[in-house]
Amino acid sequence: MTTATLSLSELTAAATQAATISAAAPDAERAAWLTAVADALDANAAELVDIADSETSLGAPRLTGEVARTSGQLRLFARVITEGSYLEAIIDHADPASTPPKPDLRRILRPIGPVAVFSASNFPFAFSVAGGDTASALAVGCSVIVKAHSGHLRLSERTAEIVADALGAAGAPEGLFALVSGREVGTALVQDPAIKAVGFTGSIPGGRALFDLATSRPDPIPFYGELGSLNPVVITAAALAERSGQLAAGLAGSFTLGAGQFCTKPGLVFIPAGTSFAAEVAEASKDKPAVGMLTSRIAEAYPDGLRSFASVPGVDVVSGSVDQDAAANGAAPVVFSTSAAKVLENPEQLLEECFGPTTMLIEYTDQAELSAVLAKVPGSLTATLHAQSGEDITALVEQLSGLAGRVLFDGWPTGVAVNWAQQHGGPYPATTSLFTSVGATAVRRFQRPVAYQDAPETVLHPALHEANPLRIPRRVDGELVLP
Amino acid sequence: MTTATLSLSELTAAATQAATISAAAPDAERAAWLTAVADALDANAAELVDIADSETSLGAPRLTGEVARTSGQLRLFARVITEGSYLEAIIDHADPASTPPKPDLRRILRPIGPVAVFSASNFPFAFSVAGGDTASALAVGCSVIVKAHSGHLRLSERTAEIVADALGAAGAPEGLFALVSGREVGTALVQDPAIKAVGFTGSIPGGRALFDLATSRPDPIPFYGELGSLNPVVITAAALAERSGQLAAGLAGSFTLGAGQFCTKPGLVFIPAGTSFAAEVAEASKDKPAVGMLTSRIAEAYPDGLRSFASVPGVDVVSGSVDQDAAANGAAPVVFSTSAAKVLENPEQLLEECFGPTTMLIEYTDQAELSAVLAKVPGSLTATLHAQSGEDITALVEQLSGLAGRVLFDGWPTGVAVNWAQQHGGPYPATTSLFTSVGATAVRRFQRPVAYQDAPETVLHPALHEANPLRIPRRVDGELVLP
Repeated sequence: MTTATLSLSELTAAATQAATISAAAPDAERAAWLTAVADALDANAAELVDIADSETSLGAPRLTGEVARTSGQLRLFARVITEGSYLEAIIDHADPASTPPKPDLRRILRPIGPVAVFSASNFPFAFSVAGGDTASALAVGCSVIVKAHSGHLRLSERTAEIVADALGAAGAPEGLFALVSGREVGTALVQDPAIKAVGFTGSIPGGRALFDLATSRPDPIPFYGELGSLNPVVITAAALAERSGQLAAGLAGSFTLGAGQFCTKPGLVFIPAGTSFAAEVAEASKDKPAVGMLTSRIAEAYPDGLRSFASVPGVDVVSGSVDQDAAANGAAPVVFSTSAAKVLENPEQLLEECFGPTTMLIEYTDQAELSAVLAKVPGSLTATLHAQSGEDITALVEQLSGLAGRVLFDGWPTGVAVNWAQQHGGPYPATTSLFTSVGATAVRRFQRPVAYQDAPETVLHPALHEANPLRIPRRVDGELVLP
Repeated sequence: MTTATLSLSELTAAATQAATISAAAPDAERAAWLTAVADALDANAAELVDIADSETSLGAPRLTGEVARTSGQLRLFARVITEGSYLEAIIDHADPASTPPKPDLRRILRPIGPVAVFSASNFPFAFSVAGGDTASALAVGCSVIVKAHSGHLRLSERTAEIVADALGAAGAPEGLFALVSGREVGTALVQDPAIKAVGFTGSIPGGRALFDLATSRPDPIPFYGELGSLNPVVITAAALAERSGQLAAGLAGSFTLGAGQFCTKPGLVFIPAGTSFAAEVAEASKDKPAVGMLTSRIAEAYPDGLRSFASVPGVDVVSGSVDQDAAANGAAPVVFSTSAAKVLENPEQLLEECFGPTTMLIEYTDQAELSAVLAKVPGSLTATLHAQSGEDITALVEQLSGLAGRVLFDGWPTGVAVNWAQQHGGPYPATTSLFTSVGATAVRRFQRPVAYQDAPETVLHPALHEANPLRIPRRVDGELVLP
């Protein structure tokens, strides 16, 4: 079910038809579809991991874990729609005595329609064909057309076969899910009148170009893009005094994880001036092996990014080499060191994401300088603080909350739990919206509210029936009521 | 506190400062600020209505009701934030035993920052200086800079004085609320880096121009615009057979209400072919008086719109005259009649909003033709169905749900209740977002999620403290828990 066999207009027509059917299907039925896809991924994990490893160099252990994460994600969304709060059902009964008289009004969230999903290169399962965008859109009753990432095309096609087969066997409508590939098809997809929203994970230039297309349509549609993130880390003097060795080891593990190709890689580390922490990080990083990157284009861009940092006066290489052939030999870790003053002089060049196993240590002299340089950091997915208990960190936490969607304490940002409370998103350019792309609340991106006024119960979604037959949480006359 | 005394950059700097203070203020305190504004509006209602009537011609009874609606709206938002669900607090406790281990994660919605609000002409209170956008943004802890509508500038300034005085007396921070005026200042406001979201109610061309500015910023911001709506009404043969007189009277009352200047005015009425309903509507409309419109520009545009409809072959004037001087004599009602076939031939010209007391009756021959012509109707705020019980209206309701944010049964769309379940918004161009601008859930437009991972309780918002000191509904480990 790709563009090889059907034209884009045939695919979007089928997706529109399928979305109508899925929107009318009971939540329990859609939950069963998601579970069927999860089971099929797990059942075919070994084959999928083999293909993925040959295309991405990410290694079997990591990829095996990612399949489990992806099937777990599908099962989470099945639980989310079964629980029912995601419908945000609200009922206000009529009040003929009020001035003016109030009608009976019942609101619910409904699926937005066919959704286009653009896969990421760096998570060939969790942010790709059967990843979070696809799962959350299917969960609420949308159809999905995935634009495959060229970095793992064979995996995308095989995953799509497994997904389509599982959906079909579970009774989902034809056309609910499809895969396309090619840059031009992707562009056409965002502009297609049948497409009602876009999910995207990728680079700032690529994402912004598609965002601009989505918002300049005659009928603009929401574009949920995750584009780029520097993920600042702040370490206080007290924390460094207490546990610098542990921090150096933790940082080295985090910025090199997956060859530094995580969107939550800690790219900026603010440390007090005048310590030996840089040497400790260098020591902790020096034995990390060079690792093959996702694609040759990414591997070629890595040393370019390194050299751009190194060319700034006042930026030192404290570990590794900027003159490396990452495409031939794998990407080797590089640690930079500079001062907050230098970053304030060259924000455009130094506050730039470099995809790969590198991080920048930035020395600050006092809280005022730290606050000034943090104010220049673009919106990020995460911000991390390492402090000691008893320190007054209120103002710092407030500032970090303003620049990131997730604020971590005494940890590292490269793990992203898939659960109800997760927020994977942040101010632009981290994301282009006020929503998460990971976790239960990701479904809200693909829903639109509709209110029914004085409607006969026969035409209402069961979630809005007076007797609450679905037994879901609802707000009735202003009060939240559990079933 | 207008541009006369402070520059825009001074205003936005003050708004940024005030937003930080308001974000940290307890909900109870912000609720008290909103209540103080509501009380002040009510206390000054007579003076405000006088000014408004002199500027808008809307008449004292309607304007008096609108002040009450506006103060009631402020009080609703005070209740919404006091109840606490609006924070969407979610707590997932740590699970060290899971693979990978899960951290403690606590999510909350936080205010987005300073918001720009563009007033509408047609609701000088409810969608203006102290209207729904302002109230919902202030409620969640944002600061607000209102761009006054030139159609009621004196009222805007007097309202702003009352709002600012009430906020100040209630202890709200300086800079939390400001008023500016002038088209160029409005444009600059949308592009100002300090502004984090925009609320707008107005025309499609004006709104789209500002939407394009907001989305083409280096850092795009959400633009919540309500732009235009045709508000289709469908009447079945059975309903017409049963109660045509009542329907004609109801329609005549609705499309002429407020000189047809409601965003929910029924502009398209689909009726079965071959009835005498057009004559009944003509009869019901003919004695409705000509009424002064909001501004001379609007009054001059009205006959232009009428003549555009009348120029289409196959469109008949069944009541009133397209050659009228609405600026001099007030706007007199005009009823048009045509067929679904003609609309399908000329969708661009006939499916166009005409601000004023006019509506278009459109005859359909069967369900297939009705469905085909409804498919051409642009996204609307409302869609209305008049049917008889026992009719199979499932497919029709499904189609109407797809094109509007509120679907009404056996009523008229020109009343918009302000409550928890309201949805005032719809597919583009009705609105540019997936949110309502009226009712409790309007607050979500001005909030962004932030998750805190392994945070010490001392830095967390009280809503996320383990003991739930605010006693609000929260989701804990996947389960919704009432206090």
